[in-house]
Amino acid sequence: MRALTWDGSRLAVSDRPEPEAGEGEAIVSVSLAGVCNTDLEIARGYMGFTGVLGHEVVGVVTEGPDSWRGRRVVSEINFACGSCPSCRQGLGRHCPTRRVMGILDADGAFAERVRVPVANLHAVPDGVDDARAVFAEPLAAAFEILEQLPLGPSEWRDQRALVLGDGKLGLLVAQVLARAGARVLAVGRHPEKLALLARRGIETRLQGDAELGTKFDLCVDATGSSGGFETAVTATRPRGCLVLKSTVAGQHAIDLAPIVIDEIQVLGSRCGPFAPALEALAADEIDVASLVEERLPLARGPEAFERARRRGARKILIECGS
Amino acid sequence: MRALTWDGSRLAVSDRPEPEAGEGEAIVSVSLAGVCNTDLEIARGYMGFTGVLGHEVVGVVTEGPDSWRGRRVVSEINFACGSCPSCRQGLGRHCPTRRVMGILDADGAFAERVRVPVANLHAVPDGVDDARAVFAEPLAAAFEILEQLPLGPSEWRDQRALVLGDGKLGLLVAQVLARAGARVLAVGRHPEKLALLARRGIETRLQGDAELGTKFDLCVDATGSSGGFETAVTATRPRGCLVLKSTVAGQHAIDLAPIVIDEIQVLGSRCGPFAPALEALAADEIDVASLVEERLPLARGPEAFERARRRGARKILIECGS
Repeated sequence: MRALTWDGSRLAVSDRPEPEAGEGEAIVSVSLAGVCNTDLEIARGYMGFTGVLGHEVVGVVTEGPDSWRGRRVVSEINFACGSCPSCRQGLGRHCPTRRVMGILDADGAFAERVRVPVANLHAVPDGVDDARAVFAEPLAAAFEILEQLPLGPSEWRDQRALVLGDGKLGLLVAQVLARAGARVLAVGRHPEKLALLARRGIETRLQGDAELGTKFDLCVDATGSSGGFETAVTATRPRGCLVLKSTVAGQHAIDLAPIVIDEIQVLGSRCGPFAPALEALAADEIDVASLVEERLPLARGPEAFERARRRGARKILIECGS
Repeated sequence: MRALTWDGSRLAVSDRPEPEAGEGEAIVSVSLAGVCNTDLEIARGYMGFTGVLGHEVVGVVTEGPDSWRGRRVVSEINFACGSCPSCRQGLGRHCPTRRVMGILDADGAFAERVRVPVANLHAVPDGVDDARAVFAEPLAAAFEILEQLPLGPSEWRDQRALVLGDGKLGLLVAQVLARAGARVLAVGRHPEKLALLARRGIETRLQGDAELGTKFDLCVDATGSSGGFETAVTATRPRGCLVLKSTVAGQHAIDLAPIVIDEIQVLGSRCGPFAPALEALAADEIDVASLVEERLPLARGPEAFERARRRGARKILIECGS
């Protein structure tokens, strides 16, 4: 089959052996797969991964248990052992021996077909088309914040939330927090992306336009830069919460003293639950359609990465169906 | 009156005007005051404070409301406005216009007398002598962790806790967590200090002796060094909690990615509740007596600071009574 691979030095579309489903596994014929910033990082050497990239996927099960065959699915990306203490506590996403689709020891979804554990599959509701279903993974990552901060509806309505970064994840996080009831201010660098949130009734501001003036109960750093962390620390009220949503590889000069003085809670946040993401997509309560920049066929995979790297690019989708 | 002052360049014992109690204030005749690492930092320029140092105090009320006069007391150090939103939420320790005894805009306790708001006073239980009562403030800072992590008794018994640092605060934190029921491992650099914990049945290990081998539900960094933070991140289990108890001024090179990948909760922690600290002292459940290195009279205040600066020094107490 054809697949977009990273060999440690270059991206190429090449022929790969057909994946074969083992015990508890399924083969998904990939319809669409999304390019994520993590993919761009990996194609710069992050994680030391080589193989087929891609971990945001929607497709149809072609091999596996009868109950799944022929169904349209999305897949969680962490392939857990299922039996270690983490897995038994329901924390499979933190299984110490996990493989991660297109990121760690497991081929990804920029391919005609991808092999995934059956346990990772989620059926896509009928009303959710492929171009929206492919956002299940990053949208789940946004919903993770609600899982980590289990506030009641009235508590969410009391939250003043600041979302830093208008990248794809920031746009999803701002919508998810607003849907939960929080009073959200989204700060970014791209007027056209912020406009997308403003259309949903979310308050927005261009970065650097003015002092924020107030402190926030909840700040989410989705900037992908260490500067975002510092801004978030300054903007979080004493005893407030700072959710660190973007991985910034490497060492950065950071002053920890304000975290101690203001007793800030910093929460690292990675991946998330698919079920609420699919529910929100089915209810059409999150705008993901406006997040799509362009669709390119698998044969033009390396070009898709170039386009995804452009400053301000929204989501690039790769069409993997033949 | 005599007092130990820092003028921005040197420590000296000098004559100061007698403090006068205003509305809602009391004058405390200081018996003993403890030298804290924060004092040492201030006497290097931290906080830009000048005036009378000292914020760990026990003494007797000589002026103030009848109900307090003559009573032996300790005092909380954050002087809050009492009326702002933070104060109304019971977060006076985070009042944005707070003054802090011997740290920010308020003279401290290395003096014959100190002025404090009546609201900050706590009566010392009869069975707690001055040399133990003077630990109320740092012990309260250790109890803050229990307030920030409101776990039930059985949940505490399930916590494997790592305390990094065998300074004064680390020794108090290890005891407080063990008293709450956690299985504590304390790691430090001074065999004689760790022995103090071992006598209380707490497991200890010399730093660098061996790999920790396991990950901990809760790690408390009380090392006062940025290296401690990094060690704590590595030692915290996925979704575990890292309490940052020591202020390390300035910028430090830190890798935030593990916090995101393992979804670690980092909790800044400063000051704490006096009531449980005094209860624990009254019940004789925390060994503070062994933490005292030496007592020096106020006239030898600068020397007390020199001694507190010695590597491995335990608590230096200054006798302020005439």
